[in-house]
Formats: sequence, C-alpha cells, structure tokens
Amino acid sequence: MTSVSRRRAGRPPGESRTRERILGAARSLFAEQGFDRTSLRGVAAAAGVDVALVSHYFGSKQRLFAEAAALPVDPAEVVPRVLAGPREEIGRRLIEQVLDILDAPESRQRVVALIRAAASEEGAAQVVRERLAREMLEPVAAALGSSDAPLRAALTNAQIVGLVMSRHILGVEATVAAGREQLAAALAPALQHFLTGPLDRR
Amino acid sequence: MTSVSRRRAGRPPGESRTRERILGAARSLFAEQGFDRTSLRGVAAAAGVDVALVSHYFGSKQRLFAEAAALPVDPAEVVPRVLAGPREEIGRRLIEQVLDILDAPESRQRVVALIRAAASEEGAAQVVRERLAREMLEPVAAALGSSDAPLRAALTNAQIVGLVMSRHILGVEATVAAGREQLAAALAPALQHFLTGPLDRR
Repeated sequence: MTSVSRRRAGRPPGESRTRERILGAARSLFAEQGFDRTSLRGVAAAAGVDVALVSHYFGSKQRLFAEAAALPVDPAEVVPRVLAGPREEIGRRLIEQVLDILDAPESRQRVVALIRAAASEEGAAQVVRERLAREMLEPVAAALGSSDAPLRAALTNAQIVGLVMSRHILGVEATVAAGREQLAAALAPALQHFLTGPLDRR
Repeated sequence: MTSVSRRRAGRPPGESRTRERILGAARSLFAEQGFDRTSLRGVAAAAGVDVALVSHYFGSKQRLFAEAAALPVDPAEVVPRVLAGPREEIGRRLIEQVLDILDAPESRQRVVALIRAAASEEGAAQVVRERLAREMLEPVAAALGSSDAPLRAALTNAQIVGLVMSRHILGVEATVAAGREQLAAALAPALQHFLTGPLDRR
C-alpha cells in the first residue's frame, strides 16, 4: 500500500528534503493547533504529500511529534556558552540564550509546539522534563557546584516555561509588548537567584 | 428530548446538587485529560447523569469549561491579603497564597485544568490572561505604586504558571519532591523581584 500511494503522490527526488518538508509542516501545525488537533492527514496536506508517505517515514503521530519537536538546540553547545564567564552574570547569559531561541521563528515554533503539547501529552511532557531540565539545566546548575542542582534546574526550567506560556501561548499583552532588553533585564535576576542564590532563606 | 432524558436519568431532588456534581466531574476530567479529550458524554458518565442533562445545564463544552475552571479564588479576597503587611515580604505572602491554592485538591484541580486547557484552547487562555493576570496580579502590582504594573503582573503570572506546569503538569521530580517551605523560600525572592525589584538594571 505504501508503494502505491508513493507512486500516486509522485515520490520526490530527495528523500531527506521531503522528510524535512514534512517535519516543517508538522512543526507549524503542532505549534498552532496543539498535539490533539493535529492529524497525520493535516500534516500531509500542509506538506503537499500523500498521507501514506508521512506514515511511511514517521509511523505514528507520537513519533512524528518526537522528531518535529526535539529541542531546537544542542545542550552540548549551549551549556558551555552559559557557563563561560563570571558566575554572577550566569542568569543574564542564560536569558540571552533563551531569547535567542525564542526570537528565531523556527526554533520558537519548536519550543512552543513542545510546551503546548506537554500540557496534554505525556510523551511531550517527558521531552521537556528530560531534555530541557535534565540535559540542559541540571548540568548548568551542577557545574556551579551546588548540592541542590536538580531543584535549581527545575525552578529555572519553570521560569522559562512560564515565559514561553505567557509570551507565546497565552499572549499576555505586557510580555508580548516588552522589548528584548527589557525582558532580559527583568528576568536575569530571577534566573540568577534560582541558579546561584540562597534558596532556603526565610 | 430534555424532559425525556431527565426522566430517564431519574431527575435528582436538588437541581443545584446535580449541577455541582456535573461541575465536579468536569473539573476532574478537564484536569486529567485536558480540554480536547474531555467530552460532554464522558462528563455525564463520570457524574452518573444522562448526557442530555449536561447539555441542558451547560449547553456547550466551552460553557461547561468556563464554569468548571473559573479561578478557585476571589481576587477581592486574595488581593487585600497579599497587600496587607510589609512591602518587602509581599513575595512571601503571595507564594503562601499560591501554595494554599495548589495544596488543596479541589482548587489545585481547577488551576491545573485551566492551565492545561489554556495551552490548547483560546477561551481558557483568555480566562488565565484576564482573571489571573488582570484581575488578581495587576491590582497587586498597581497598589505597589509602580508605573510598569502590567509587566510586573505578567512576569509574576508567568512564574506562577511555570510552577504549576513544573509541579503539577510536567511532573518535574525536584519540584514534586520539594516541601512546601522549601518551595516558598526558593520562590519568594523571585516574586518579590518581579513585584518590587528594579526591573531594568543591566
């Protein structure tokens, strides 16, 4: 059946280009509509290919999601950049990295799709828990030499997820309208507190 | 048709008790399954009533949601409580109120349902934007006499939404395992910063 519909859809020359086109369409739809309302059929239509081709490459909606919404950055690149420099400016460096990701349309779309889906889909929640918290923020917190690195990473993660919800999902006017420098200045001290501040002072 | 199915479902003596039972079932299902996966039929089954009765009382899923997931607190009660006391402890008083809400099962369920749904449903996003940010947190920020009350309210809101996502929706282990006092102590300074700190210092 797959080969029939491939023929019907006219199999494109570059497999990887088609795959990328499907992933791009999936990212847009997952970000706009959320996980539940996005269908393989809708992704196929947006990518201009037959739905059987989407199934052939990705199998299920869960698998398509996992590939489309992987973190848009490689922790191995970002973590050293956040760590390099004075310890008391780590909050500032982290928020700059986060805003870089959120200000580029393609990577913003991935993050929004991921967080939107994480609210309703356990598979996506797991990606946020493991990749964002464990692979990216825990190494940062651990490198600072604190005993409570997991809690520091989790609170930092919560702050970033809250920002994405406010600015890109709920569309709270004040965070949408705020300039990049204004957001960075306002959020850096809170991230700095979570990463290096005294967490247990009454 | 309504009167037939009411008879079939065995109309209970107290209308308001039935309404409350339906709302309770709706809250549980919206919180567990999210907006998209919850159906009027599922709510009716969980409440032990005929689906026509649910339609009769609430009309659409959107209206049922709006009633089930209204904020679990009245801003007119909470705002004065947060404002009463030393200005430099307002972050602490706010996080105590938030943790009170999140530690009581029924009100936690409402907040979780609301935020989960806000990720996929514009109607729910609007409730979070208007009721949480505008009615509750803006008056707090405005009472502190700052010119940038909307941004302060929005960042405070983002922090709270991020906490709910982390602890109750994503289930990030470190925030789930943290004790109440530990969370309050860790989050109070960040909320204090958003409400009264210098937002624009480089």
